[in-house]
Amino acid sequence: MAIVIIRQDGKIDEWKQKLLEADPSLEIYSYLEEHPAEKISMVLVWKHPRGILANYPNLKCLASFGAGVDFIFEDNTIDPSIPITRVIDPFLASDMSEFVIAQILNYLKNLHQYDSDKSQGVWQPLPYRRLKDTTVGILGMGELGQALARDLVALGTQVVGWASKAREFEGLKVYGSKELTTFLGQSEILVCLLPLTPSTEGILSRQLFAELPKGAYVINVARGGHLVDEDLLKMIDNGHLSGACLDVYHREPLEKEHPFWQHPKVHMTPHIASVSDIASVVPQLLENYSRLLSGEPLKNEVSREKGY
Amino acid sequence: MAIVIIRQDGKIDEWKQKLLEADPSLEIYSYLEEHPAEKISMVLVWKHPRGILANYPNLKCLASFGAGVDFIFEDNTIDPSIPITRVIDPFLASDMSEFVIAQILNYLKNLHQYDSDKSQGVWQPLPYRRLKDTTVGILGMGELGQALARDLVALGTQVVGWASKAREFEGLKVYGSKELTTFLGQSEILVCLLPLTPSTEGILSRQLFAELPKGAYVINVARGGHLVDEDLLKMIDNGHLSGACLDVYHREPLEKEHPFWQHPKVHMTPHIASVSDIASVVPQLLENYSRLLSGEPLKNEVSREKGY
Repeated sequence: MAIVIIRQDGKIDEWKQKLLEADPSLEIYSYLEEHPAEKISMVLVWKHPRGILANYPNLKCLASFGAGVDFIFEDNTIDPSIPITRVIDPFLASDMSEFVIAQILNYLKNLHQYDSDKSQGVWQPLPYRRLKDTTVGILGMGELGQALARDLVALGTQVVGWASKAREFEGLKVYGSKELTTFLGQSEILVCLLPLTPSTEGILSRQLFAELPKGAYVINVARGGHLVDEDLLKMIDNGHLSGACLDVYHREPLEKEHPFWQHPKVHMTPHIASVSDIASVVPQLLENYSRLLSGEPLKNEVSREKGY
Repeated sequence: MAIVIIRQDGKIDEWKQKLLEADPSLEIYSYLEEHPAEKISMVLVWKHPRGILANYPNLKCLASFGAGVDFIFEDNTIDPSIPITRVIDPFLASDMSEFVIAQILNYLKNLHQYDSDKSQGVWQPLPYRRLKDTTVGILGMGELGQALARDLVALGTQVVGWASKAREFEGLKVYGSKELTTFLGQSEILVCLLPLTPSTEGILSRQLFAELPKGAYVINVARGGHLVDEDLLKMIDNGHLSGACLDVYHREPLEKEHPFWQHPKVHMTPHIASVSDIASVVPQLLENYSRLLSGEPLKNEVSREKGY
């Protein structure tokens, strides 16, 4: 049995080296080098070329390098009987929370504006807002949404959540799928942390934005596919939304001619809110490989039905 | 007995109106209108014209509109027997904490850089750092320093403090005045929240910066007088400091020709980190006036000896 790494971001050698440092006995290949396809039982994968997995006839596990698996579900050439796993990086949630808190505060305190004022030589104090006077709505109350909710509450923020099932989370109200309107009506700042599935694709649309309070601010740190780009721009330009902060895009890097680049109320970062940490991911990948070898159940297996 | 308001920021009428709404029986004047100087027993003051307080022969209380009283101590024409009070705004501390957390995160996550990259059409992901891997040193562990320390700890940050006397604060180490070197050696991000007194003026100097770890970042949200501007620029330009975030300056607005405006590693805001909230300040001013009338001891009186 052997492992192959498939990713297109130039980081294969770095991952291969870290995996071999942790277990020098591994038989592990880059998909770009010559390798025995029939020996491959596990593919470590991140945004693979569509269709390539059909090359491996004896595949027993498709392991995503990250928390997201949407790129695997999007490839319908994959045999649906092959188990899919994802990585739960303990820092992914706290990194995401730190990033979102920074962007919420930048918005409330006008800090993007002051950066721009400085470059123009402008001294112009503006009134600011407080976390305790602000309600943040979190779309998606999984690991990431929960960590963010906890940190925001610790700083005195009002928080509401939205998830598939209504429930209480540590004293916070989490609205269920049918209560989206009630949830949106309270969300002065909306943070999208949903998994990307057929039912959440394009959810950040004109209809949804229209149900937010006037002047709401939108933060998308989940996937570009959640957002209808033109709808966001329309709702900012007609004054209903006060702006947005985006870390993810339909295509990455974002194409040069995209209107987001020029829009003064769209704040952008290049998909850096939360990046998998090799040091914490390697042991999880190796543990599942060892479970595969010994026939034990895999950890962090994804549900094909739920899509995450 | 009557009150006079002295401030030069164009906000006298707003304050006068709010005070009269709270107590319509007040006899209260702007220092710019004709008023009976000998009747004035209380001056409400913010950055007054030096020497002007000698006009009031029967003054019994000098009440600062804010937490700072440095501008009163700087005017040596004031009779030292007149009690001075300051305001403890419950939001001043949490506002300050929110602002400083935003700027710490902006530094750790390179968010100022991404704002600048966006304006240039640049997509360039950079490695980020985490609060939990960062030690923040807080110079000054009064109301504001304590609130910041609590919030940073809630988010998992390592925090050390420095104050006149060494002590423990909710499990954190607060170093005393003679342990400055030990404190500075640990401070990867240094936040100045000291009162401005003769002993803290110019404390943010070349010698102090030299004791910080290489690559440290400096945040000054206290007073412009704490910082030796040229020393900061030298220590950034020689690579010892990685940058700074400033909210306060020797002169405000900062003069147009000051080199801070052009420096890419100096991030600036126009003294907005924490602004007194009229609604919470008015009752405190009125309570001390009522205590003055009835001969009770004043609240939040400042020590001339300590300077705050």
